[in-house]
Amino acid sequence: MNELEFINLVKRSSSAVAPYGEGIGDDCAVMPATNGRATVITTDMLAEGVHFRLSTAPAYAIGWKALAVNLSDVASMGVRPVASFMAISRPEGVPDRWYEEFMAGYSDLSVKFGVPLMGGDTTASGSGLTICVTAIGEGEAAHIKRRSAALPGDIVMTAGTLGDSAAGLSLAERGSSRYPHLLNAHLSPTPQVDEGQWLGSRNEVHAMTDISDGIAKDLMQICDMSGTGARVELTHLPLSDDLLHYCTEENIDPAAPAICGGEDFKLLFTVNEAEADKLTADFTARFGYAPSPIGRITSGCGIEWLRDGAAVNEKFAGYIHR
Amino acid sequence: MNELEFINLVKRSSSAVAPYGEGIGDDCAVMPATNGRATVITTDMLAEGVHFRLSTAPAYAIGWKALAVNLSDVASMGVRPVASFMAISRPEGVPDRWYEEFMAGYSDLSVKFGVPLMGGDTTASGSGLTICVTAIGEGEAAHIKRRSAALPGDIVMTAGTLGDSAAGLSLAERGSSRYPHLLNAHLSPTPQVDEGQWLGSRNEVHAMTDISDGIAKDLMQICDMSGTGARVELTHLPLSDDLLHYCTEENIDPAAPAICGGEDFKLLFTVNEAEADKLTADFTARFGYAPSPIGRITSGCGIEWLRDGAAVNEKFAGYIHR
Repeated sequence: MNELEFINLVKRSSSAVAPYGEGIGDDCAVMPATNGRATVITTDMLAEGVHFRLSTAPAYAIGWKALAVNLSDVASMGVRPVASFMAISRPEGVPDRWYEEFMAGYSDLSVKFGVPLMGGDTTASGSGLTICVTAIGEGEAAHIKRRSAALPGDIVMTAGTLGDSAAGLSLAERGSSRYPHLLNAHLSPTPQVDEGQWLGSRNEVHAMTDISDGIAKDLMQICDMSGTGARVELTHLPLSDDLLHYCTEENIDPAAPAICGGEDFKLLFTVNEAEADKLTADFTARFGYAPSPIGRITSGCGIEWLRDGAAVNEKFAGYIHR
Repeated sequence: MNELEFINLVKRSSSAVAPYGEGIGDDCAVMPATNGRATVITTDMLAEGVHFRLSTAPAYAIGWKALAVNLSDVASMGVRPVASFMAISRPEGVPDRWYEEFMAGYSDLSVKFGVPLMGGDTTASGSGLTICVTAIGEGEAAHIKRRSAALPGDIVMTAGTLGDSAAGLSLAERGSSRYPHLLNAHLSPTPQVDEGQWLGSRNEVHAMTDISDGIAKDLMQICDMSGTGARVELTHLPLSDDLLHYCTEENIDPAAPAICGGEDFKLLFTVNEAEADKLTADFTARFGYAPSPIGRITSGCGIEWLRDGAAVNEKFAGYIHR
């Protein structure tokens, strides 16, 4: 049973009980609002041998990232993370030092955004080490942003540069310590907690998600759930100087990691066209950098990729589509 | 690093950020109340090779129990479970049938108490199969019951019989299919969801928890957190006929599984003495069986075990203490 088949089994199995609020389908589940306030919940599991190797991955980074991916999911709903829970299965033979560094990474990110670790579970493991983090967010129900809310004509924006994490992964796999900015984007990504909450408070922001699988997949999810298409101008993708240097050296088109690379954990959102300039100015004043308009929501189907206004060739399009 | 050392590391690591509501220490964390309503959260992890073996444990029972232990934690807080989340790491080679039965068990318990599965995560596993379930409960903040609320003089009560699960585990390990009531208590325990919510609504109930590690440990936690002691009369422990038959056959003192056996998932609570008769009558009218008064909270320290009013001998006391 592959992942998609398993997910379909879970969906069938869970259809017998009506959801409490909004369930499977967005970055977080949304509990019914009480007094105009809503709670969102997300959970992610990291498995040794799949997401990390005990022998090579820095324990600090694993602890940081285990929490980061969940805080990013909460941020993408437009509300603030307020608590986390961490369950871990621990095999024999892992040195104390590993756990100390793991918890240091987890704790440092908790402190950075003031999100307390409120509980969890620990068990022995007869095989690998597995980590499961659950994060809770809370905020005004009216601020919740969904993937399904994009409208034709919306400007598609990202907050911050794309592709750094994918390049960092390549560097890490080769044991390289060059381009620390790229490595850090992969090992210890900073979830856009403040940006997410701020964007949640803005009515001109329609759909929002975080980029965990590359915009080719994450923007496609917004389109699928909104019943829209999108058009993306590749020359508008925000790319860091380090990524450009790295891609020149490696003879890679930098659009590839920016579009298909995973784990950027930057926010991807759509904005009412008439208010996009105002939102951009306010965002820039608040955060000291501008969000990047990378394209537009269309009434079509699927994503059109353009370079300087011309459709990109088939081969590239084939690579960047799901 | 053993489990206690790891838990202490987690507590140290999490002390840097003030909790959001009430964190580590009870069956669930409690989020701050909004409009008089509170949300509780708990998470539990089950690891292959520790909690179950793929080759021998019935997949249906694993799915059922993965949810049951979490619903029991919510019930023990005095509120109603409203949602669950399930994350799973899936190794290669597990037959489709296993996942179908696993989800059937999970789903049947979801339906039984109307608790929807609202989200989760699935990942490949390079080693064992690991399951992490998170449950959310919701109810009146004033109904929340804590381990720390026992008062000297309170009557200690349990809802339902004790020790069946421990005997069922012994039977299951021997591949026996005798005593289906005991086997079922181990494989598919029914969390006391309705009882928990009802007891939560009663002011005369002070402390409450669920019995996951045997009353020797779980009552001790109530005592430790309440700053009290307790006295338990062994002849008052509620024991099923099947357990009595089984223990006679096996030449076991039935008090041992009742006190030290894990995973009974029955509620353990303390009741204001003056109102205990009224509570017992109302509970019996509501649920069709009486809760069992097994002892009393004292102003002392630790648990005194009595048989017909006389202190039990040292050997037994040594066995049943932590």
